[in-house]
Amino acid sequence: MKELLESARRGKIRAIARLITQVENSPAAAEQAVQALYPHTGKAHIVGITGSPGAGKSTVVNALVKMLRQQEARVGIVAVDPSSPFTGGALLGDRVRMRDLSGDPGIFIRSMASRGSLGGLAQATASVVKVLDAAGYDFILVETVGAGQAEVDIANAAHTTVVVEAPGMGDEIQSIKAGILEIADILVVNKVDRPGADRTVRSLKMMLHLGPVGGTRRSGRISANNVQENSGGWDIPVIETIATEGKGMAELAATLGRHMAHLRQSGEWLQRERDRSWREIEMLLQRRFMHQFQAQVPLEMREGLLTAVAERAVDPYTAVNQLLAKSDENM
Amino acid sequence: MKELLESARRGKIRAIARLITQVENSPAAAEQAVQALYPHTGKAHIVGITGSPGAGKSTVVNALVKMLRQQEARVGIVAVDPSSPFTGGALLGDRVRMRDLSGDPGIFIRSMASRGSLGGLAQATASVVKVLDAAGYDFILVETVGAGQAEVDIANAAHTTVVVEAPGMGDEIQSIKAGILEIADILVVNKVDRPGADRTVRSLKMMLHLGPVGGTRRSGRISANNVQENSGGWDIPVIETIATEGKGMAELAATLGRHMAHLRQSGEWLQRERDRSWREIEMLLQRRFMHQFQAQVPLEMREGLLTAVAERAVDPYTAVNQLLAKSDENM
Repeated sequence: MKELLESARRGKIRAIARLITQVENSPAAAEQAVQALYPHTGKAHIVGITGSPGAGKSTVVNALVKMLRQQEARVGIVAVDPSSPFTGGALLGDRVRMRDLSGDPGIFIRSMASRGSLGGLAQATASVVKVLDAAGYDFILVETVGAGQAEVDIANAAHTTVVVEAPGMGDEIQSIKAGILEIADILVVNKVDRPGADRTVRSLKMMLHLGPVGGTRRSGRISANNVQENSGGWDIPVIETIATEGKGMAELAATLGRHMAHLRQSGEWLQRERDRSWREIEMLLQRRFMHQFQAQVPLEMREGLLTAVAERAVDPYTAVNQLLAKSDENM
Repeated sequence: MKELLESARRGKIRAIARLITQVENSPAAAEQAVQALYPHTGKAHIVGITGSPGAGKSTVVNALVKMLRQQEARVGIVAVDPSSPFTGGALLGDRVRMRDLSGDPGIFIRSMASRGSLGGLAQATASVVKVLDAAGYDFILVETVGAGQAEVDIANAAHTTVVVEAPGMGDEIQSIKAGILEIADILVVNKVDRPGADRTVRSLKMMLHLGPVGGTRRSGRISANNVQENSGGWDIPVIETIATEGKGMAELAATLGRHMAHLRQSGEWLQRERDRSWREIEMLLQRRFMHQFQAQVPLEMREGLLTAVAERAVDPYTAVNQLLAKSDENM
């Protein structure tokens, strides 16, 4: 393990891949890896990329990667597919991607699918991002499918969140946009050669200025003492792209740099690091608590209470009280 | 509170609405309500409805509700919008819906948006469903937007999960489908009057038979001892609808009944109740653990460690070990 960690840190592709597999499969390996690599992290620019299905997120990511590579940056890509918790649904996209970007040692791609556990994916993604950070990638792009809580969690783990939209996605999607816009630092309207692009750009700009803090990021970040803090000072730019032709990618790359400079100058960089650290610590604490609990309360008691709750003989709150009493007793 | 609970249980609309507001806003009220109402729950058929944006989910829900009302069933609708964690993004859809279904005392509609807390929405939804169950609604339709972890959580809280698709939703959506199909008990292809409908129906049927347990639900349900269990014995039907004209709704309603009968006969009903109970208990336990922890570890220590982690002076695992040691000390 020590050798593997050292090779990964020196950027050896195969070592990184092997280490990530270990980190994904074993919490003990994740702990060991993060403890060893953590002092070497904090250098990468972590960019979350999300948006409506069909907006061309993957194409935007590929085009952006090519642009960043032209600028000599090393890029790690983590493609997260929370919609497929049971089987490896992320694999198909990975294979398509590989064909397009493979062969370049300055690019590392990894697909991840949820395993159905509460918070498991967010935790694993955080560890994988740390491995890539320590391995010296300048940018780590975390791409997610869908528009749910997972995106919000991932946005909270990124320095910069890019939301990708496209013209003419239908009315129902408006409501999703409204939600997802709240996590955006940068908006991309892709496929601007399509009919209706002007209208989409206009309506997005309008939505951005309708919010409670008109035009600045409405931050819902929560600090350790649960106080909501506003970031402010950053006007969310709307960037028009045609990713299949690489159009708009230079502007997107430059805007990423500009956002990074803003984060550092405003002091928000440290605030985002603190928020992310808190979320990670919270997840680790919860896992530890559940392990302790399972060790302290016999399986038969848990199973018995579960049946009683399912049959309406005991309510869930009373069951929790009984389980906690047992847990305290056996400490 | 006692009077309010009694009125809600007798199905008084205004009491139900007021009780739900209290349950959403205060964990203490949720505990009191669930403890009091729990013995009266377990009668409703809880149906989760999800699918790709633009497939016409809301229209399907509205048409299904009208069909169920014709059959004299009382219907509760919970519209969950996990994409909007910070502001009340669910409200727009709610207002549109109200216009269509309002005035019928056999229908209760409630919109919910996430508040940005880990698992907070799933927890609140579970409590609201219990209130409606105890209030005597025969069906509780839980409708979600998007295709993320929230959908999976909600599917795990339903007896029957309906996934709504539509023809011609683009290629990227295929990968989402693959993921979301894994949680479906019933598939609806809406807008079958559109071009390409035949192809969509055919490809969905093909995907259903490509899975590892070909044609039966690939259940990822996790029991209290973390053993994955398969359900099986249910062939996922593909139902063709034109919701705007009410077409296919009688078949959908009948299929819901058939799935319910299957659950009861196969014994899976109790299994799903147990799974759901376990998830709920797990969420409650984690909340309790975090409360205890916050009471035991001084805020200054938490804040200090957070800064140290953000600045890379301490890694997250070491921070957790220090926090737990402090917590044990102060117990």
